[in-house]
Amino acid sequence: MIDIQEATQLVLSRKRDFGTEKRPLEQCSGRVLRQDIRADRDFPPFTRVTMDGIAIQWAAYEKGQRRFPVEGIQAAGSPQLRLMDAGSCLEVMTGAVLPENTDTVIRYEDLQIEEGQAQIIPEAKVKAYQNAHGQGTDRQAGDLIVASGAVLSPAEIGVAATVGLPELEVACMPKAVIVSTGDELVPVASRPEPHQIRTSNSHTIQMALSRWGVPADRLHIDDELEATKTALGNCIQNYDIILLSGGVSKGKYDYVPAALEALGAKKHFHKVKQRPGKPFWFGEVEGQCTIFALPGNPVSSFMCTQRYVRPWLRVNLGLEPMGYAHAVLAEDFHFKPDLTYFLQVKTHYDAATGRLMAQPVEGHGSGDLANLADANAFLELPRGRNDYAAGEVFPLIFYR
Amino acid sequence: MIDIQEATQLVLSRKRDFGTEKRPLEQCSGRVLRQDIRADRDFPPFTRVTMDGIAIQWAAYEKGQRRFPVEGIQAAGSPQLRLMDAGSCLEVMTGAVLPENTDTVIRYEDLQIEEGQAQIIPEAKVKAYQNAHGQGTDRQAGDLIVASGAVLSPAEIGVAATVGLPELEVACMPKAVIVSTGDELVPVASRPEPHQIRTSNSHTIQMALSRWGVPADRLHIDDELEATKTALGNCIQNYDIILLSGGVSKGKYDYVPAALEALGAKKHFHKVKQRPGKPFWFGEVEGQCTIFALPGNPVSSFMCTQRYVRPWLRVNLGLEPMGYAHAVLAEDFHFKPDLTYFLQVKTHYDAATGRLMAQPVEGHGSGDLANLADANAFLELPRGRNDYAAGEVFPLIFYR
Repeated sequence: MIDIQEATQLVLSRKRDFGTEKRPLEQCSGRVLRQDIRADRDFPPFTRVTMDGIAIQWAAYEKGQRRFPVEGIQAAGSPQLRLMDAGSCLEVMTGAVLPENTDTVIRYEDLQIEEGQAQIIPEAKVKAYQNAHGQGTDRQAGDLIVASGAVLSPAEIGVAATVGLPELEVACMPKAVIVSTGDELVPVASRPEPHQIRTSNSHTIQMALSRWGVPADRLHIDDELEATKTALGNCIQNYDIILLSGGVSKGKYDYVPAALEALGAKKHFHKVKQRPGKPFWFGEVEGQCTIFALPGNPVSSFMCTQRYVRPWLRVNLGLEPMGYAHAVLAEDFHFKPDLTYFLQVKTHYDAATGRLMAQPVEGHGSGDLANLADANAFLELPRGRNDYAAGEVFPLIFYR
Repeated sequence: MIDIQEATQLVLSRKRDFGTEKRPLEQCSGRVLRQDIRADRDFPPFTRVTMDGIAIQWAAYEKGQRRFPVEGIQAAGSPQLRLMDAGSCLEVMTGAVLPENTDTVIRYEDLQIEEGQAQIIPEAKVKAYQNAHGQGTDRQAGDLIVASGAVLSPAEIGVAATVGLPELEVACMPKAVIVSTGDELVPVASRPEPHQIRTSNSHTIQMALSRWGVPADRLHIDDELEATKTALGNCIQNYDIILLSGGVSKGKYDYVPAALEALGAKKHFHKVKQRPGKPFWFGEVEGQCTIFALPGNPVSSFMCTQRYVRPWLRVNLGLEPMGYAHAVLAEDFHFKPDLTYFLQVKTHYDAATGRLMAQPVEGHGSGDLANLADANAFLELPRGRNDYAAGEVFPLIFYR
């Protein structure tokens, strides 16, 4: 039995590469970019009018001229016009090209326009070259705007659209399958016999994965060695990652470790000094399939998914390891076994100090799924001690 | 022109009800629950074995008995067995029903089993009723587990699965359309003429909305009054919410406010004392369509989406108004106009103090889309002053 530090290190050191794929912009939210996004032209691509009004030559204004005959209108989306007479003006619209032979824009608020003549009002404050956004001042053609490795959010999607990329090269997400075991389990829509319960873990884990961008199928295997071997063999062929729930304890029908080892999966560890989640088994068919065999209790499997699967995913997408939040234990807590304890807590900000407080949420152990709905995080209490005092700070895993 | 407090109040006071719908569990992530989730039976539904081992009568152990003949095996998923002889035991598996006539489970780690006899090892620590999770100790049939109004996360989905709900009643999301205007805009995949630029705002806003669970279509309208009226009339009929980008300034071809008013939309305000986003227009066709007409500059339309549309959405889904994060301005900043300034910043935690620091990210105004990709938040600097000192704390809008 290893401790959580060693388990974490073993999980994060198993490197995989899921390849890259091109996806349309709408499907790139949260994906990891695998190409550089560069400016295909200057930004802005032309000196751009930023206020509706008139474009003039600064030199004319500087010499005292305040009244300008209007030669025409430069609309947004129209080819660039040319001011013919240095002493006249062109009306210009926001987003338009600044006309040739002009350099300064006076906004309508500072003008009176009557009978083809624009008069600048005396109160107007006019500065040279104002209200024109110079070509290439944001970025120049060829500049790197978003580097490979970025996580794509709406801001990066806007950049990609601007530089003419309707699709982006992104890291593939691993293909996952969630396998539930346990003959006591029946489907959600069925009416269980008194000794049966409905499947819930695979739904919980499926949604957690989908929030991280990982599509996952669900599968149930009966507690029978040959059936377990056949089904897991197919999963190893067809998926990058298997998340099992149940079948990893010391029970007579816990065939999962035996079946995985018979299929050539290498075990990296079985059992971790933690509660919940002690029977956690981790291994792989090298280069082909990574296997997280989690305990069947709802709180255990959920905690292990948050604490091990999520960081593994980040690292294998080439992202920085996850930074942990930290919170203040709100009341004294006692825990006897020599195990890291993942305490279910509900967090709030203390109004007086602004500190993030973690209030233990009383539950009834790792089978108490309902309790997960009352809490919002796990507080990670280190092993090697029995008493944890109110006011101490510990790592926190938010799961909402 | 109104200030941002009044604008916020006007936006949030326009109440809509988008109705409810039933959705399968996989599609409920982030949705707002519109039914109570109650326990359909006790949890656990039977006294449940929590360790693999043997089940005995505590009374026998208490009297000093340490060796128990094995009568059989109680597997998970099998109907409850009955211990025939009070002095013998049944092997029991995690997840199984605790057999009738037994009350205490001894785990395999504390046993030696040979030739049909289970011997408890001398070092074993055994407590009465251990390793059995009593029927109804978590929740009792009929108990409320998740109340209507909750935001659904994997934990609640697990609860719904457990109580036999393959579908949940949730709040409908509004149907949105994002309308871009401006004759200078061309589609992403095209090669723009020198005076044209590619559409980016509608992609940016579409992804922001999709992250909040709102499906949105995209549409472009040319700068022409009749075309604008026809297209917006159709949008009002077919969508709950219209987000326009562009066409709301003082330009000759800014037909949006006129077209909306001709179509019977009531204007609640036009222009807000803020930068970016001053020309923001907000109104509605009462009870039918809410309209956010945003400025066409990329930073302006994105900021208004984050600052006004998102809180409006939360309130209309029946959630608490958004709590704002706060951050410390990392360096002195000067801003002259009497407008609330939404400063683009990049945040980090200061290692020494643990405070969230906001570093201004130099950009070139509201047209500088690329800058959004370098920053991660807006810091909201109040109007009525020109100087903002390093160390001051202001509200923060994260947008990643």
